[in-house]
Amino acid sequence: MGKAGLPLASVVADSGLEVIGIDVDERRCEMINEGVNPIPEEAGLDELIRKHGGKTLIATPRYEDARECTNFIIIVPLFIDEGHRPDYSILEGAFRNVGKILKRGDLVVLETTVPPTTTETIVREWLEGESDLLMGDFYLAYSPERIMTGYSISRLRGFPKIIGGVDEMSGTRAFELYEKFIPNLQKVSSSRTAEFVKIIEGSYRDVNIALANEIFKIAEELEIDFYEARSYANHEYCHIHLPSTGVGGHCIPVYPWFLINEMEKREKFSLAELQRTSRKINDEMAGHWAEKIILGALKIDRPLSQVKICLKGITYRKGVKGIYHSRNLALAKLLARKELRVGVYDDLFSKEEIESLGLNFMNPGDADLVFDCFELSFSQ
Amino acid sequence: MGKAGLPLASVVADSGLEVIGIDVDERRCEMINEGVNPIPEEAGLDELIRKHGGKTLIATPRYEDARECTNFIIIVPLFIDEGHRPDYSILEGAFRNVGKILKRGDLVVLETTVPPTTTETIVREWLEGESDLLMGDFYLAYSPERIMTGYSISRLRGFPKIIGGVDEMSGTRAFELYEKFIPNLQKVSSSRTAEFVKIIEGSYRDVNIALANEIFKIAEELEIDFYEARSYANHEYCHIHLPSTGVGGHCIPVYPWFLINEMEKREKFSLAELQRTSRKINDEMAGHWAEKIILGALKIDRPLSQVKICLKGITYRKGVKGIYHSRNLALAKLLARKELRVGVYDDLFSKEEIESLGLNFMNPGDADLVFDCFELSFSQ
Repeated sequence: MGKAGLPLASVVADSGLEVIGIDVDERRCEMINEGVNPIPEEAGLDELIRKHGGKTLIATPRYEDARECTNFIIIVPLFIDEGHRPDYSILEGAFRNVGKILKRGDLVVLETTVPPTTTETIVREWLEGESDLLMGDFYLAYSPERIMTGYSISRLRGFPKIIGGVDEMSGTRAFELYEKFIPNLQKVSSSRTAEFVKIIEGSYRDVNIALANEIFKIAEELEIDFYEARSYANHEYCHIHLPSTGVGGHCIPVYPWFLINEMEKREKFSLAELQRTSRKINDEMAGHWAEKIILGALKIDRPLSQVKICLKGITYRKGVKGIYHSRNLALAKLLARKELRVGVYDDLFSKEEIESLGLNFMNPGDADLVFDCFELSFSQ
Repeated sequence: MGKAGLPLASVVADSGLEVIGIDVDERRCEMINEGVNPIPEEAGLDELIRKHGGKTLIATPRYEDARECTNFIIIVPLFIDEGHRPDYSILEGAFRNVGKILKRGDLVVLETTVPPTTTETIVREWLEGESDLLMGDFYLAYSPERIMTGYSISRLRGFPKIIGGVDEMSGTRAFELYEKFIPNLQKVSSSRTAEFVKIIEGSYRDVNIALANEIFKIAEELEIDFYEARSYANHEYCHIHLPSTGVGGHCIPVYPWFLINEMEKREKFSLAELQRTSRKINDEMAGHWAEKIILGALKIDRPLSQVKICLKGITYRKGVKGIYHSRNLALAKLLARKELRVGVYDDLFSKEEIESLGLNFMNPGDADLVFDCFELSFSQ
């Protein structure tokens, strides 16, 4: 019942199906069952939780409460470790718990974004291992979430959603279930294809953000206004993205590694070279902006170590209170390590919250130089 | 009066202006003056040449015949040498010839795609050097051609076209001239910006073709149908391109080098890294297909040296009789160097023309294995 699961569960319940929603957080389950939306920033969710919470949508921390369900949808986070390798522990836990209550004829669908072949290999093994059933006794499919924090409900109701089975029958069964609550549903040939589709969307975005960052830096070097050039370059055949301090969050900076790592494992060392280069370019943008900030601070008539620098915006995306792989956070830490007098300000964070991240708080009004991490603009 | 200049000159003449069109090829000039279109594959050009050729559009090999003109548009090829550096000789020749007949108050506009700052630096120097005039006595602007062989007339009449001056007055003067014959004209802040816009459109295309080629090879490795995955991945926010044998022609494989070289010259060695990686990936695709063709030939029950391999398609683009930087040609030469029995077939080339390229001709019907360089498909 997280950011991704709760909107989905609400939409399923709203289609007239009965839903048991599982979450480890007992307090969160109580809220949902009382009709209170724990994710108020998600547009349209209040209404659905009020309508279905505690009625056709019942939240619980216990997998056993879902024993009578015949369809299981898993949508838990998959993080990557410091070596950019997926950490399957949360995913494995969820599937092993489902495996324990799995019955003959049941359908299991994974929605978490995973490396291609995950569903047909390790997910299948976890389920078979716990259930004493074999593939064919149960059905297994994959349908990647394509939601966006804040817009999940409208995405589920308007955006195309794809689904593919580990085998033919699984694909058919999963399609029949999902078409009950997803208006724009498309069946693809396999779970592997569905997994791949989601990853390459992320790779497209990451590579194109890297290209925007590269062109932005070249425009700076040539003293050309990037934004003016972009506005005339973009048309039907050209979609140059926007520059940034890098790419943060749970999605775009993570997914390319699934392909990069898989190709390395297969000893195809250069097969994901463009995606690897893009990752590097985007991650290095923090260094680019650090240099620009220092050059800005040098122009202030005071010893550099005394110039008060405020970074405005610490989250990975404007308006979303999340810092997973936030490059704005990386930028703040990079400057702090240089022993500059750096403080951070963010509308969504209190002074205490910022200090708990190991950073100094600073009001923009108290700074000699303010850098807006989202607007990429300086003010004094 | 080449592939790019003649359609433009015809459109200008069709707007009611008088045009002197210069081309070194005397026979071509005669054809135009007789109302005969030397580029029949260019849609809509026949009619314009019949209507204006020898009347308001007069072709000549002599720059002196343009002495009374007050506006000059230069659109000649710019090639790159083996070190990917631009060879300015044709461009310089054209501008020096215009400089010799340039008068106070005249306007000169460059349309050839060039590295950013070319118009305001070397083009200006060539004109000032030959004319005894200084910038301000004459006006100088840049407006990149955005035509596409075969569709030039409709591109000029429908697609947005940008124009920018070396100085304010030049931009204004150039805009006033071009709006007489370009319906969708946009003024940008400088010639440098206009130059940059054209280059980054090419870089967007090259990088995205490289991404398509990289994802295609990864899909092969994972046994996923790339085309199926692409069809579901592409939507409003995702524009994955098509794979290929690489990128040929005068435009996309050339323009990224303008930025790569310029950044190297400025000792910003990694500032165009994504574009450099993309160039490499696209150029290396010939090697990828050579390997696939050899693997295909190995499956035929005959000594490899006797397997007759036919490559279908030798031009850089389907339907265009041109081989500049053709990666299909590179692929044919790569296989021939491996001493395989390789022949080439192309609808647009005779047996003699193919042999004059140093390749063997082969009818697809006589081959054991046919590889279609445009469809990327094998047949036997």
